Amino acid sequence: MSKYYFQQQDLKDYTIRYFVRWGVPAEDAELAAEVLVSSDARGVDSHGMIRLNSYYGSRLRKGLIDPLSPITVLKETPTTLAMDGGNGLGHPLGIKAMRRCIEKASTVGLAFATVRNSNHYGIAGYYAMLALPHDMIGISFTNSGPLVAPTHGRTAMLGTNPIAVAVPANSQRPFVLDMATSIVPIGRVTVYQKEGKSIPAGWGVNNKGVITEDPSQVIEGGALMPLGGSDIMRGYKGYGLALLVDIFAGVLADGGFSDNVTGSSSDQPAKVGHFFGAIKIDAFREINSFKQSMDELLQKIKDSPKAEGEERIFIHGEKEFENADRSEVEGVVLSETTVNILKKSGLEDGVEFNLTPIKIT
Amino acid sequence: MSKYYFQQQDLKDYTIRYFVRWGVPAEDAELAAEVLVSSDARGVDSHGMIRLNSYYGSRLRKGLIDPLSPITVLKETPTTLAMDGGNGLGHPLGIKAMRRCIEKASTVGLAFATVRNSNHYGIAGYYAMLALPHDMIGISFTNSGPLVAPTHGRTAMLGTNPIAVAVPANSQRPFVLDMATSIVPIGRVTVYQKEGKSIPAGWGVNNKGVITEDPSQVIEGGALMPLGGSDIMRGYKGYGLALLVDIFAGVLADGGFSDNVTGSSSDQPAKVGHFFGAIKIDAFREINSFKQSMDELLQKIKDSPKAEGEERIFIHGEKEFENADRSEVEGVVLSETTVNILKKSGLEDGVEFNLTPIKIT
Repeated sequence: MSKYYFQQQDLKDYTIRYFVRWGVPAEDAELAAEVLVSSDARGVDSHGMIRLNSYYGSRLRKGLIDPLSPITVLKETPTTLAMDGGNGLGHPLGIKAMRRCIEKASTVGLAFATVRNSNHYGIAGYYAMLALPHDMIGISFTNSGPLVAPTHGRTAMLGTNPIAVAVPANSQRPFVLDMATSIVPIGRVTVYQKEGKSIPAGWGVNNKGVITEDPSQVIEGGALMPLGGSDIMRGYKGYGLALLVDIFAGVLADGGFSDNVTGSSSDQPAKVGHFFGAIKIDAFREINSFKQSMDELLQKIKDSPKAEGEERIFIHGEKEFENADRSEVEGVVLSETTVNILKKSGLEDGVEFNLTPIKIT
Repeated sequence: MSKYYFQQQDLKDYTIRYFVRWGVPAEDAELAAEVLVSSDARGVDSHGMIRLNSYYGSRLRKGLIDPLSPITVLKETPTTLAMDGGNGLGHPLGIKAMRRCIEKASTVGLAFATVRNSNHYGIAGYYAMLALPHDMIGISFTNSGPLVAPTHGRTAMLGTNPIAVAVPANSQRPFVLDMATSIVPIGRVTVYQKEGKSIPAGWGVNNKGVITEDPSQVIEGGALMPLGGSDIMRGYKGYGLALLVDIFAGVLADGGFSDNVTGSSSDQPAKVGHFFGAIKIDAFREINSFKQSMDELLQKIKDSPKAEGEERIFIHGEKEFENADRSEVEGVVLSETTVNILKKSGLEDGVEFNLTPIKIT
């Protein structure tokens, strides 16, 4: 499988054209392109351009995402904002909500926002990271279509509901936790299925709720397990985190939750909800000394003795920052699979993917 | 092993006498007693009266906890509060900080508070639950002495750093997530060691950072693993959550973090930090409809099909609420081990544990 390297701006321009083709206003298309291409640039290709047709284009075409829907403010106070996204595209909704959080927090120290009736917004961490240049801690949660069974259950009742939190440091990279609350995403199980391999015991259950190593049994009528996995490994904690995200992004947002979020593969509006937060650090302590303490903490962890056979302890987000730096220099890598998908859907969708790669390896 | 049932008020009165004996002002002693006895009443005996001497009395006696230390406000805004606990008892500090959060949130919608230079505050969930009668979501994190190795590490660099979040419902019990970010607490490993049993692979590593089933190797020079465990089960997520708690309760609080938190077993002040939050629900949506949606979500999850061999899906906090109800009727259960420890330390500490149980089974 070859790797294709593209100019980041070329990919953004293509993505903008793609969204504009489907009726998304240019300004919103630009925001969506920014999130999607950043995802590939950071090496999180599962949430990048590979989804252009499946999560977005195909749904815009069917009218399952409304590109022109106005945002409605349901409730607002100096510290809080509850918005209805009117089934609009998730990325611009997410960016707008997070920007409002940051504005509010710059005045009052803390702010939270909810968005209901949205769609898949890509990588949760993108929105949390918007807080970083403002010397704030950023928070971003989203719910998603049901894929995860609760502990002692057999049916997918919760999404992979990610939690993202970004915290600035000084000479160290920011801490950017961006984690699904399931052990793995369903896409990971599909990869094993395609390769004819068994999955590790604990990633998922079959349609009886019993742990299985057969990926097909997870995909067909089974469910993913929450972080932790089995009872003995305390999977109820991951289940609790998934439920927590559904409470913040679903119930508090007065939107879809549990299995009335249909996600991106059904023929109904997805009813996805998001939760955002911004915390102004110097409301608690002077920002430079905070950042120095962050450096000290992260360096201390990284310098601690390594396990046998391991050479490096990573901080959350570190690998992705290194990927992003590499993408700046060498271009953004898309896999052959992604390029083929983009070529195929580009033709069908009337926005031909004809970019010239910088190099192919 | 027998179980001893006591009147809840008798246990509280004893605990108050115990703390007053060690110089704690009556009002603070009452708050500490409330948290500790609640823990036993809720069935979380690991964080209850069994710790009276080991976490508190022995440290008050050695001057490692200052019962009279005044609270200093480091920084305050309408939404935020940063406090220095002056190495005081953790429970009254936690309750006071959380009460201030709730007061602030009732005015401005959201509030966060940090406390540095505190001590072990018992169950994290207690503080989060203080928000419930105010129709708020409560949040409580604490760091603790290092017991958990980062992913790819071999040395304990992080505490078991729990996350607690409490959310009210209507006819359903509130959702109360109260989870250490390690798979199990070290006490669980000690139990296996005492019983001469192997621990499940993944709970902990030996002094080379390699997963071991020998509890002694975890306790002597090894470390606990974060929620998730091994790489393949995504233990870096639990490691990220532990680090997140240390950032909020340690770095943001401008207090101890990582291995400069010494916890409750060293001969230094513990340098424990806490983080609290309160979110007024009706800043986002009308409280009664919120609670109805919570009921709907929790009922939906509980009613979903059960895994083979399982009869019930639990919501977080549900078992503890049922224990608390039982304690109201039958009295609070202490194990024979706990009673023996209390009798022994009560004699040594000059506060004889001579309560008459309601019954013994």
